[in-house]
Amino acid sequence: MLRPRGSATRKDRDRIVNLSDGVFAIAITLLVLDIRVPDIPESMVASRLPSALLSLWPNYLGYFLSFVGISAFWTIHHSIFRPIRAYDRVLLYFNFLFLMVVAFVPFPTSLLGEYGDHQLPVAIYAATLAVGRLLLTAISWHSARNDRLLDEPQDPATVRYFLMRGLTIPAIFLLSIVLSFFSVTVAIWTWFVMLVVDAVVTRRRFR
Amino acid sequence: MLRPRGSATRKDRDRIVNLSDGVFAIAITLLVLDIRVPDIPESMVASRLPSALLSLWPNYLGYFLSFVGISAFWTIHHSIFRPIRAYDRVLLYFNFLFLMVVAFVPFPTSLLGEYGDHQLPVAIYAATLAVGRLLLTAISWHSARNDRLLDEPQDPATVRYFLMRGLTIPAIFLLSIVLSFFSVTVAIWTWFVMLVVDAVVTRRRFR
Amino acid sequence: MLRPRGSATRKDRDRIVNLSDGVFAIAITLLVLDIRVPDIPESMVASRLPSALLSLWPNYLGYFLSFVGISAFWTIHHSIFRPIRAYDRVLLYFNFLFLMVVAFVPFPTSLLGEYGDHQLPVAIYAATLAVGRLLLTAISWHSARNDRLLDEPQDPATVRYFLMRGLTIPAIFLLSIVLSFFSVTVAIWTWFVMLVVDAVVTRRRFR
Amino acid sequence: MLRPRGSATRKDRDRIVNLSDGVFAIAITLLVLDIRVPDIPESMVASRLPSALLSLWPNYLGYFLSFVGISAFWTIHHSIFRPIRAYDRVLLYFNFLFLMVVAFVPFPTSLLGEYGDHQLPVAIYAATLAVGRLLLTAISWHSARNDRLLDEPQDPATVRYFLMRGLTIPAIFLLSIVLSFFSVTVAIWTWFVMLVVDAVVTRRRFR
Repeated sequence: MLRPRGSATRKDRDRIVNLSDGVFAIAITLLVLDIRVPDIPESMVASRLPSALLSLWPNYLGYFLSFVGISAFWTIHHSIFRPIRAYDRVLLYFNFLFLMVVAFVPFPTSLLGEYGDHQLPVAIYAATLAVGRLLLTAISWHSARNDRLLDEPQDPATVRYFLMRGLTIPAIFLLSIVLSFFSVTVAIWTWFVMLVVDAVVTRRRFR
Repeated sequence: MLRPRGSATRKDRDRIVNLSDGVFAIAITLLVLDIRVPDIPESMVASRLPSALLSLWPNYLGYFLSFVGISAFWTIHHSIFRPIRAYDRVLLYFNFLFLMVVAFVPFPTSLLGEYGDHQLPVAIYAATLAVGRLLLTAISWHSARNDRLLDEPQDPATVRYFLMRGLTIPAIFLLSIVLSFFSVTVAIWTWFVMLVVDAVVTRRRFR
Repeated sequence: MLRPRGSATRKDRDRIVNLSDGVFAIAITLLVLDIRVPDIPESMVASRLPSALLSLWPNYLGYFLSFVGISAFWTIHHSIFRPIRAYDRVLLYFNFLFLMVVAFVPFPTSLLGEYGDHQLPVAIYAATLAVGRLLLTAISWHSARNDRLLDEPQDPATVRYFLMRGLTIPAIFLLSIVLSFFSVTVAIWTWFVMLVVDAVVTRRRFR
Repeated sequence: MLRPRGSATRKDRDRIVNLSDGVFAIAITLLVLDIRVPDIPESMVASRLPSALLSLWPNYLGYFLSFVGISAFWTIHHSIFRPIRAYDRVLLYFNFLFLMVVAFVPFPTSLLGEYGDHQLPVAIYAATLAVGRLLLTAISWHSARNDRLLDEPQDPATVRYFLMRGLTIPAIFLLSIVLSFFSVTVAIWTWFVMLVVDAVVTRRRFR
C-alpha cells in the first residue's frame, strides 16, 4: 500500500503535505478562541473595558508566541518536505506524531495565558515546543538517511547543519525549563532571544 | 453531472480527496478544544495546578486515541483513494457518510473524556469507530467491484486481504463493546492491543 | 486584476474552489461542537446518562440535516464549477455570498437543536437553506450566460433543467415555511421527502 | 533553504498560498461561533425568541462586516500572489504577520458584537483591519520591487495604482478611528461607504 517508488508517489507525498497544512492552518486560527471578550455590565463598559482589555495581555502574548512557534514549525516542515518525493511508514508515523503536537499547542498556550506567572505552565509550554521540534528533526534525519525518499541525495554538510540546529533549539527549550524554576520571566525571555538569534543565524547562512 | 469517464474526472476525484482531507484536518485539530484549562483561584494555583492537570488524564487519553483513530482512517482512506480515478454517486454518498462519522468523533471522544469509567461512553466510542471503519470498507469494496472507477483492475488477492482486514477491525470494536459490559478497562485495552497487532501485521505484509 | 482570459485563469478558478472547499469542510466539522456532553453528577451517571444522551436527539437530527444539506450544496457547487474555467467579479461576489450562507448554517442548526419544536427556528432554518440554494442557482445561471467563463458553451436543455431544479428546491423550502405555521413536524418532514425525491429524480436522469 | 530560483519554487509559493487559504477559510467560518443561541426557558420561547434573536443584530452586523472584510483581504491577497512565482524570507514573514491579523479578526469582531456602541471596540476593529490592509500593501510593494519574485516585471503605473489604493484604505480606517470619538455610528458608516466606493472605483478601472 505504501509504495516508496512509482508514478503516484509525488502525489501521495502531496496529500501528506496538504493534511499537514490543514492542521497548521487550523491550529494557528484556533488560538484566537482563547482570547475571550471580557464580561462587563453595560453601565461600566466605558470605564472598565480599557483595563479589562489590557489585563488580557498574557493571552495576547500566548497568541503571539504560539503563532510564531507554529509558523516556524511550518517553515521548517516546508523546508524538510521540499526535497522529499516519497514516504515510508516511519516518516508517516513521525509526521502524525508531529501533527499531534502541533494540534495540541492551543492547550499549553491557553494554560500559559491563564497561569503564565507560574512555573508549571511555562515548563509545559517549553516541553511541548521542544518535542515538536525534535519530531521535525527526526523526520529530517530519517529522510536524509533514506535516499530513495528524496529527489536527490542531500549534501552531508547541509544534513549536519540541520541536525545541529534541530537539536540546539530543543536543548534551549529544555534549558528554559530549568531556568523557569528560578524565574518564569527569564525563561520566557529565553524564547524571544532564541527566536531573534535563530533568525539572524539563518539569515547569515542563506545570504 | 457525475461523469465517471472523461478528461476532468481525475480532477473531480481530487476535489473529493481535498474536502475529505479538510474534514480530517479539522476533526483532529478540534479534539484539543476538549482539554480545558482547569479553573483555580490565583492563591492556590501553585499547590493545586499539578494535580488538576493530572486529573485531566482521561481527556489526554481521549485526545491520543482519537488522534490515532482518525490518523488511521486517513491512512486507509489515502490507500483506498490512490488507485481511484473517477467516482460515481454511490462512492460519493459512502464518502459523505464516512466524513459524517469522522466529523462526529469529537463528541464520543468528549464523552469518553468525561465519563470514561462508565460502560455506555466506551460502547458509543467503539461503535463510532466501528461504523467509520465499515464505511471505509464499503468504499473500498465498491471501488474494487467497479473497474471503471480505477486506474487499473485490482489484484483479487489484495482485494480479499483488504476486505478481511476491513471487517476484522470493526468486529474487534464490536467485541470490545461486549467486553465493556464486564470491564471498561479491558475494553479500552482491546483497542490498544488491536492497534499494535495491526501495525505489526501490516508491516510484515508490506516488507 | 480579474482577467477572465489568459494562461493563469484555470489556476485562479482553482483557488476559489479551494477556499470554498475549506469553508465547506470547516462548516460541516463545526456542527459537532453543538452536540454538548451532558453534565451529570458522578453518582448518577450510570442511571441518567442514557436518557440524557437520548434527549439530545434534536441535536443529532440537526447535525444530520445540516451535514446532508451542506454536502448537497458541495455536490451542486462541484457540478457548477466543473465546466467553469475563469471567473469575473459577479461570480466571485455570488460565491462569497454563498459561502457566507454556508458558514452561517451552524447557527440555524444550533437554533433548531435548541428550539426545534417551535415555528421560528424551523422557518429560519428553511430560509437559510433556501437562500443558499438560490445563490448556487445564481452562480450557475450567471456562468451559463457567459460563455467566456466556461470551457465550452453549455447545452440549453441542461441549463434549463438545472435552472428549474435550482428554483424548485428553494420553492419547496419556502413552502415548508408556510407549513411550519400549521405544523412544525410536517415542515421538517417536507425536507426529508424533498431529499429522497431529489435523489431519485437525479438518479433517473443520470442513469 | 529558501531558494528564490529553481524548478521547485512555483510549488513552494503554492504551499504558502494553500496555508493562507486555510487560514482565510477557517477565520471566516469561525465568525459564526460568535452568534450564540439565546437561552430562554421553555415556557417563554414562543413569546421571547423573536425579540431575543433581533437583539443579536450587532452580532449579525459583525459577522457580515468581518466576512466582507476577510473576503476583501482574500481577493487582494489573490491578486497580489497571482504574478508571484517565488518568495524570499521578507515576503514569508510579512505573509505570516498578515495571517496573524486575519486569524485575529474574530476577536475584535466579537468585541464589536458585544460592545459595538462604545468607542474603544470600534477603534480596535478599525485598527485591526487597517494593519491587515497595510501588511498586504507591504507584501505587494516588496514583490513589485523584487523582479526575481515575479513571473514578469510589473507595469509601474499598476504598481503605483495599487500602492495608492493600498494606502488610502488604511488611511480611511484610521480616519474612522478619529471619527469614532465623536460618533460611533458615523465611524461604522464610513466603512460601508468605503466598501461601496471601492467596489465602484475598482469596477470602473477594470471595465
